[in-house]
Amino acid sequence: MASMITPSDGTADPADLVIDLNADLGEGYGRWTLTDDEALLSAVTSANVACGFHAGDPSIMRRVCELAAERGVRIGAQVSYRDLAGFGRRAMDVPPQELADEVAYQIGALEVFARAAGSRVSYVKPHGALYNRTVHDAAQAAAVVAGVHLAAGPGLPVLGLPGSPLLAAAAEAGLPAVPEAFADRAYTPAGTLVPRSEPGAVLHDPDAVVEQALTLVRGGTGRSLCLHGDTPGAAELALRVRRALAGAGVRLAAFA
Amino acid sequence: MASMITPSDGTADPADLVIDLNADLGEGYGRWTLTDDEALLSAVTSANVACGFHAGDPSIMRRVCELAAERGVRIGAQVSYRDLAGFGRRAMDVPPQELADEVAYQIGALEVFARAAGSRVSYVKPHGALYNRTVHDAAQAAAVVAGVHLAAGPGLPVLGLPGSPLLAAAAEAGLPAVPEAFADRAYTPAGTLVPRSEPGAVLHDPDAVVEQALTLVRGGTGRSLCLHGDTPGAAELALRVRRALAGAGVRLAAFA
Amino acid sequence: MASMITPSDGTADPADLVIDLNADLGEGYGRWTLTDDEALLSAVTSANVACGFHAGDPSIMRRVCELAAERGVRIGAQVSYRDLAGFGRRAMDVPPQELADEVAYQIGALEVFARAAGSRVSYVKPHGALYNRTVHDAAQAAAVVAGVHLAAGPGLPVLGLPGSPLLAAAAEAGLPAVPEAFADRAYTPAGTLVPRSEPGAVLHDPDAVVEQALTLVRGGTGRSLCLHGDTPGAAELALRVRRALAGAGVRLAAFA
Amino acid sequence: MASMITPSDGTADPADLVIDLNADLGEGYGRWTLTDDEALLSAVTSANVACGFHAGDPSIMRRVCELAAERGVRIGAQVSYRDLAGFGRRAMDVPPQELADEVAYQIGALEVFARAAGSRVSYVKPHGALYNRTVHDAAQAAAVVAGVHLAAGPGLPVLGLPGSPLLAAAAEAGLPAVPEAFADRAYTPAGTLVPRSEPGAVLHDPDAVVEQALTLVRGGTGRSLCLHGDTPGAAELALRVRRALAGAGVRLAAFA
Repeated sequence: MASMITPSDGTADPADLVIDLNADLGEGYGRWTLTDDEALLSAVTSANVACGFHAGDPSIMRRVCELAAERGVRIGAQVSYRDLAGFGRRAMDVPPQELADEVAYQIGALEVFARAAGSRVSYVKPHGALYNRTVHDAAQAAAVVAGVHLAAGPGLPVLGLPGSPLLAAAAEAGLPAVPEAFADRAYTPAGTLVPRSEPGAVLHDPDAVVEQALTLVRGGTGRSLCLHGDTPGAAELALRVRRALAGAGVRLAAFA
Repeated sequence: MASMITPSDGTADPADLVIDLNADLGEGYGRWTLTDDEALLSAVTSANVACGFHAGDPSIMRRVCELAAERGVRIGAQVSYRDLAGFGRRAMDVPPQELADEVAYQIGALEVFARAAGSRVSYVKPHGALYNRTVHDAAQAAAVVAGVHLAAGPGLPVLGLPGSPLLAAAAEAGLPAVPEAFADRAYTPAGTLVPRSEPGAVLHDPDAVVEQALTLVRGGTGRSLCLHGDTPGAAELALRVRRALAGAGVRLAAFA
Repeated sequence: MASMITPSDGTADPADLVIDLNADLGEGYGRWTLTDDEALLSAVTSANVACGFHAGDPSIMRRVCELAAERGVRIGAQVSYRDLAGFGRRAMDVPPQELADEVAYQIGALEVFARAAGSRVSYVKPHGALYNRTVHDAAQAAAVVAGVHLAAGPGLPVLGLPGSPLLAAAAEAGLPAVPEAFADRAYTPAGTLVPRSEPGAVLHDPDAVVEQALTLVRGGTGRSLCLHGDTPGAAELALRVRRALAGAGVRLAAFA
Repeated sequence: MASMITPSDGTADPADLVIDLNADLGEGYGRWTLTDDEALLSAVTSANVACGFHAGDPSIMRRVCELAAERGVRIGAQVSYRDLAGFGRRAMDVPPQELADEVAYQIGALEVFARAAGSRVSYVKPHGALYNRTVHDAAQAAAVVAGVHLAAGPGLPVLGLPGSPLLAAAAEAGLPAVPEAFADRAYTPAGTLVPRSEPGAVLHDPDAVVEQALTLVRGGTGRSLCLHGDTPGAAELALRVRRALAGAGVRLAAFA
């Protein structure tokens, strides 16, 4: 059974704390909508923008970039397996070089819209099954990092789970590795995520989510806090977390 | 019935002539191959690289960019309707803003591979049905140009048919408009292309293609000469044209 | 400006009238939902089920067929251009044989799920841009009919606009041609639909929709009445129309 | 290192032997061609026709079915993961119900063209990564079988590797399970295939392929013999195998 995460000490002074809030945006496609992009952009400091492989057509990408730039929200490339039918949630054995090339392709496509909006792609975060895969598969983790490097050289940060092969590969390649924590996912006592297949894996009670967000931030678990955007009420919950953190004296800002 | 094009005077001194040779490359997809990219890169000075919407997966795009950069061949984005099943040869009524965004997306994706290879996307040329559409449809022509501008600002040249709405829209938007001629397509006396549905629209005799290439170049019909890459013997024919032009004292170089 | 349609006499006795109600269903895809299939199935007598080319993945198709079969709602194949990104709303110049084959493919795929649910594909209706195209393009209309014939021989009815080339082609090929009317679209005095680009083309006031439905049915404009399923409140409106027709003594039943 | 397979006794009288020859056909897509369908149809008794998920557009499917029916070659559905970019060679973690539905969809689509040609889909064989997955993954094997059952009830045979979970699942579901052997793949002494990643996994020498075909048939290793269709010279090699088998008195016929 999952327990709430217990931070190492919990004594950090919130006034010293700076945290980034990230969420997935732009996850519609053509006629279909999913994420409430406008509302989420009022809550987050970083937007993981879908790049067309699991969601996000070019027009959605452009609009989200325009909105994010207007509001000073940082733009990240949410790269995925090529799998519209499965929303990128079906793991795929993509050979490493192919995967790197697919990652680079997506980053390049998004960069165009970020630049046109007066911003730029400032980080990369894998989506769905690719995210989960890079938590345990070093070869795919390295391929994602190779794709980021191919697209942008050594300067582009990679966002991922603390201790994951993905962040290890990023660090090894000289890319900034940014750990994130999940406000609405239960953690095991060892600090890993409880698998979605287990009961209680996802926190649905808004109060519990807000409390876990505060605990995680005080515990210094990550430099970014991930909020989910594709559930009903997601934007409202994100705003509550933002207000609670701000009320606790935490400064909200995109990671440097 | 189509006649060979008659240049306005035909008196240009070949020693003063500079011509670009362009062909479509990278038109395989996954397991499928089409264009003989290596051989064509020995013949052309500009490579119209498919960007994934009608052909060209990310790995093919990367490899073609690497080869082109090695050989000093200029890289252009061959943008298309989103139509793998129809190879981009089926005209689509894409609303202008959507079309502009789709064009920008493709340019951005290719730019990543061009840059990684030490080069850059140096021009844009529509493919197939989109090319044909922009010969008579001013709205779609303007949308393509808007997409180029969105992706790259005012500096990126657009390659197209002389007198077409596409080149007019490019010029109006401040983009360099580069006219091209076709070595293997029959022209009407008025200087337009004979439709493919008519007999004799495509020249199949290599000697005729070479002769028309020389005639077109001497006549100053375009700053670039298009050779087709997706037919059997295409690369060999491209090399013959290149040698014939060089033998006539024409200098081959990517357009400035 | 559009006027309400004036039926030729309007004197039909509702007690003699039988009308089919059809709506588009199953128009989600993977993670995305659109139509409220369960609610719509309580309102309609015929379900135009998306077949995967503009919407509708295999699992959605199966579930909609199961629900439709349970409730005795007739299943039709809502065939489309291959265009997920554009939701089948972008007209495409698909060569006739290709179009026929694409139509047949979709019908065959849906038939599997209809049969597994104990039902069968009982008619075909083109979607979106393909529907609109077959209102004025005889070649594409004939291609759709050829695809229906290829898939199912001469017995499968085709649903379309009265007087359209689609229904003419169906009749010529020996397929039952079923005319339909639109409860929520304004008609011109000539009996054609007001283009969506004009103001007032779509009726938004539920009372107006219900009244037009009654007028159309009494006027004998079609054997089926189309209700739109992809707008907010669509299912509720469909139920209102159904109740109003039933209240007027009209019998609701799938066309024979 | 791989050895040639040693049949259990090798004493079967060829005159008593009947063997089916199967190969993958119709593996082009749109503008791209791969398999030499016409030539292969002169060699095989069963055609594994691609159904659009890894290759094979509707027009190709129709043409291959027409040709197969003309020549009395049995038509099978070569079902795949939805992966055009990877040609179905990238394993995917598709949830069982989704996979079953995707399999059924493909079978239904092909059935239309087989019926129109006067034939029918007579068996199902998974392609590429799905085939390999069902050799060791019982859940996906069961999902494929569930898809076959959903599409066609209990009568449709499944072709696969002897001893695989796929054939076990087929047998359990009451579907005919047809074992096949590979003429051009090296076997381990235990009778399993040598992985492609090992040297010598694929036999390239035509004489060796022919000899292995004879050995396999005499050894009774399978009721069908798979020949690969997507390599240069595949059709010629298939004809050689056919002639060698016929010359040895083996009767060639689609499995009953």
